[in-house]
Amino acid sequence: MAAFKRFLIGRPLKTAELGEQKLNKKKALAILSSDALSSVAYGPEQILLVLITVSAAAFWYSIPIGIGVLVLLTALILSYRQIIFAYPHGGGAYIVSKNNLGVYPGLVAGGSLLVDYILTVAVSVSAGTDAITSAFPSLHEYNVPIAVVFVLLLTLLNLRGVTESASVLAYPVYLFVFSLLILIGAGLYHIMIGGVAPEWHTPIGTPIAGISLFLLLKAFASGSSALTGVEAISNAIPNFKNPAPSNAAKTLSAMGLILALLFSGIVVLAYLYGIKPLEEATVVSQIAEETFGRNFMYFFIQGTTALILILAANTGYSAFPLLAVNLAKDKFIPRMFTVRGDRLGYSNGILILGLLSILLIIAFQGKTEQLIPLYAVGVFIPFTLSQSGMMLKWIREKPAGWITKLTINTAGAVISFTVTMMFFITKFAQVWPVLVFLPLIVFLFHRIKKHYVAVGDQLRLATCEPAVPIEGNVIIVPVSGITHVVEQSLNYAQSLGAEQIIAVYIPFDREEEAKFEEKWKQWKPDIRLVTLHSPYRSIIQPLSKFIDMVKRKADESNYQVTVVIPQFIPKKGWHNLLHNQSSFMIRTHLLHHKDIVITTVPYHLKK
Amino acid sequence: MAAFKRFLIGRPLKTAELGEQKLNKKKALAILSSDALSSVAYGPEQILLVLITVSAAAFWYSIPIGIGVLVLLTALILSYRQIIFAYPHGGGAYIVSKNNLGVYPGLVAGGSLLVDYILTVAVSVSAGTDAITSAFPSLHEYNVPIAVVFVLLLTLLNLRGVTESASVLAYPVYLFVFSLLILIGAGLYHIMIGGVAPEWHTPIGTPIAGISLFLLLKAFASGSSALTGVEAISNAIPNFKNPAPSNAAKTLSAMGLILALLFSGIVVLAYLYGIKPLEEATVVSQIAEETFGRNFMYFFIQGTTALILILAANTGYSAFPLLAVNLAKDKFIPRMFTVRGDRLGYSNGILILGLLSILLIIAFQGKTEQLIPLYAVGVFIPFTLSQSGMMLKWIREKPAGWITKLTINTAGAVISFTVTMMFFITKFAQVWPVLVFLPLIVFLFHRIKKHYVAVGDQLRLATCEPAVPIEGNVIIVPVSGITHVVEQSLNYAQSLGAEQIIAVYIPFDREEEAKFEEKWKQWKPDIRLVTLHSPYRSIIQPLSKFIDMVKRKADESNYQVTVVIPQFIPKKGWHNLLHNQSSFMIRTHLLHHKDIVITTVPYHLKK
Repeated sequence: MAAFKRFLIGRPLKTAELGEQKLNKKKALAILSSDALSSVAYGPEQILLVLITVSAAAFWYSIPIGIGVLVLLTALILSYRQIIFAYPHGGGAYIVSKNNLGVYPGLVAGGSLLVDYILTVAVSVSAGTDAITSAFPSLHEYNVPIAVVFVLLLTLLNLRGVTESASVLAYPVYLFVFSLLILIGAGLYHIMIGGVAPEWHTPIGTPIAGISLFLLLKAFASGSSALTGVEAISNAIPNFKNPAPSNAAKTLSAMGLILALLFSGIVVLAYLYGIKPLEEATVVSQIAEETFGRNFMYFFIQGTTALILILAANTGYSAFPLLAVNLAKDKFIPRMFTVRGDRLGYSNGILILGLLSILLIIAFQGKTEQLIPLYAVGVFIPFTLSQSGMMLKWIREKPAGWITKLTINTAGAVISFTVTMMFFITKFAQVWPVLVFLPLIVFLFHRIKKHYVAVGDQLRLATCEPAVPIEGNVIIVPVSGITHVVEQSLNYAQSLGAEQIIAVYIPFDREEEAKFEEKWKQWKPDIRLVTLHSPYRSIIQPLSKFIDMVKRKADESNYQVTVVIPQFIPKKGWHNLLHNQSSFMIRTHLLHHKDIVITTVPYHLKK
Repeated sequence: MAAFKRFLIGRPLKTAELGEQKLNKKKALAILSSDALSSVAYGPEQILLVLITVSAAAFWYSIPIGIGVLVLLTALILSYRQIIFAYPHGGGAYIVSKNNLGVYPGLVAGGSLLVDYILTVAVSVSAGTDAITSAFPSLHEYNVPIAVVFVLLLTLLNLRGVTESASVLAYPVYLFVFSLLILIGAGLYHIMIGGVAPEWHTPIGTPIAGISLFLLLKAFASGSSALTGVEAISNAIPNFKNPAPSNAAKTLSAMGLILALLFSGIVVLAYLYGIKPLEEATVVSQIAEETFGRNFMYFFIQGTTALILILAANTGYSAFPLLAVNLAKDKFIPRMFTVRGDRLGYSNGILILGLLSILLIIAFQGKTEQLIPLYAVGVFIPFTLSQSGMMLKWIREKPAGWITKLTINTAGAVISFTVTMMFFITKFAQVWPVLVFLPLIVFLFHRIKKHYVAVGDQLRLATCEPAVPIEGNVIIVPVSGITHVVEQSLNYAQSLGAEQIIAVYIPFDREEEAKFEEKWKQWKPDIRLVTLHSPYRSIIQPLSKFIDMVKRKADESNYQVTVVIPQFIPKKGWHNLLHNQSSFMIRTHLLHHKDIVITTVPYHLKK
């Protein structure tokens, strides 16, 4: 078992080795930007899908809309750079909102992101699997199991540790960037040498009947879904090599630049080629086919795209555990999320994330596209909150150059808020669940915190009444027969120097009772035996009543009651099925229902 | 929880009330013969299904084959009467075979029947559900959930107790017998008044081309499947009112008579009406339609038939738990099967039977017809073994009139053996699994027995070396901080008058370590604190190593090592999710891996 675990995730690491597990900029860019970069594969298409509802002639609007998305991207990147420097220990939307807007806005942002990272994993892996099985249609019916296997592999990779997963994942990410840059370059060259007829696209500015502001905003909101994932770096600052904040800021800028380049390249090519969104081929694949024909480069681009969609899930794996640590440190989610696993990653967070996304994939049978708007809105809510939080921060603190900083964050907040509203207005049918689960999650956070605070109050020594001194001990030994197991427990009880020892026997019929009492007198005449006849064949009920009685009397003289339970432990696990688990059931019942000490004297069987 | 259980199965009964839970003959006939009687609904059809493979003209052979089945029935009833008187405490095939042929034949018979009762439940309930959903085709796709609900209802009914289930089930069984008797009477009257043309059936004795001995034997074996269930009464003698054996024998004879009457009636009517087995209507339903037309009586007969098929499962519920008790008393299956539940039934047997048959129904998606031959052979193997056992018994004991007795059992044994062989020869493709699972089950029985014997040997006082006297105690208290929970455990440890108390603290980093030691010195200067630095963030590993060391030293002076574990118990179950289960994990590990005493000092949180 231990060997198998070691095989899967590697040897355990000492806490002191933590420093070696940090990321350099190149690796960080690969694992933290895969989500954002992968959106290039579907973002431009989302814009066209909205515009086509009017007519293909309306496609020229994708250019101004694309510029709008780039403006939003710029605002977000600049805002998050400011957040990184202001919160160098990891400034996710949760921390920023909590510190500047208050606890509840923080919880809304945190809860929203927590759910979103699960959606990231489910949606990305499903989309990637779809891309792969589109190439091999015979595999299509196995979409769900294939997606589940990918999630398991990603989970395993992340349990091995962040540097190791970064090393494995860096290649496909850079390959994807590389292949798209080639595509864009080749595409533009293709156009320059006149490979594209001007009648393929309507000139910019052509008036189109039936276009409305509502439609354009809807197209803009859809296009903005390409920006999900840009917040991941600001959550993951603790994973960076020192100086972490400046490394993170540089990585963020690099990511913004690449994203802007790829996004505008695809939007421009799609417009110039006059590409229409099709059921059977993605926009990127149509551009690639137009540019290269169906040759090696075409399949190379298709392959790296499928891969990056799956790897986008890894952004969830990097950001979820760190966000969970922050929430758990503030006692809003279970403490177990703060525990580092064998490989120093927050393994509980990684495991829960994997498990929940597998459940989502199975529940939606791999058809997670319907979750995309939900997922986008779940990103833009925390975007809005964190930018607003930063605005307040600058207004309150007024550091040098605060006007510029405030302007940047205000722009970010306004645009994010607008996009959020767009989603609610134009896609309410798909995003309404946010309005249900966010309050639920925040309520749950609140209840958990309340419990932890209550426990802390009760355990803290200062607030407790001093313990009642123990003046003596009464020991009860339930006995099931005259065996070696029982003898061992009785010997132990006698060794403790208790004031009183009582053996308790619970017979189901009278005949048995008399016989046992007789035998006992010969065996252990010095230990008092109490027999409790049980007409309903229950052991726990009469024992429990008897203990209550003994305890009442013991309390009078400040005596402590201890139940010593003899228990034999079979050599093999399956043997437990062959024995009534009386010892176990007695202990479980007493532990939860009685205020007494419970001692187990194990007798280990040798065969 | 307790109230809900009481609502489902009724108030608990005292052991002394056992006598009131016994069955009179009328109720016993109803619940123990439903399986055998229900076979009338499909037995005759099985014969025709084999004969039709030659031609409809061969149907006259059903008369001599039917006579053969009646002979076999008579032999079985007479043999089982003898078994009942010879084994008045319940003489299933298991007991009879074990006592006369030896342990392994007994286990083959017992294992075979044990599996068979599970098949009885699954097959009967599926068949009954099928009959019901045939009448309401829109329900057909819900066959599996409906069947599962029926199994759950039967399980519940049997958990309520045997008399209560008998009271509920008696009506449908007698209604079925009644309705079939009316059908046979009306059918014969219909024939007497000339409602049937002579050309509808071939006269008996007509030579048929292509008929073979093999085919006739196959038809005979198929018809014998109507005899499954006749052994149930001999298993269930302990459920009868006194004088149990004579009541059981009378019930058996009554059942044999009714079964013979119904079986021959249906066979004769089917022959005279010239009925052919059809996919869409059963033989009984065709006879009913021919006799009455599609009026009330027709639907009444269909309804009671569907009902009795489901209730046939109840025979399994009556016999399985009693057989399991016999096997468990001999230590071949887990002891828990001997425990009487709240209502004095052997509830573990009832629950396991219900669970396993639900699993079978789900695994076969309710299409359990394929299991019928398997099920029949699983009955005739124990038939053969128990009859052979009785033969040996008479030869050995030679009581008054033993020649007659021997003749009867010999006839039973020979016919049962022949039928068994027929199944293997003519339906090998369906019955081969018996050859796999029977040896497996017997092997399992053997392993379980071996374990119980080994445990008994180890626990028995006579065979154990005398316990080493305990000269003193060493107590180890793992502490997680300076809290009230820890203080309570330390107070308890101090009250025991142990020779040595050691508090153990396991920090994950050096800084924490020094701080804690400092605080401890001020808090409990009189208790020795050991800190075990854990570079790999494991609690169990360093603690376990430390305990080994302490135990080695303690063993030298015959000191007993006790680990006292402080544990706080949250007020509500779900709160456990919010706390790392360190106490629980430490205890589980130590209990299974160390030969030390483990004490839990619970601290019950109040909110």
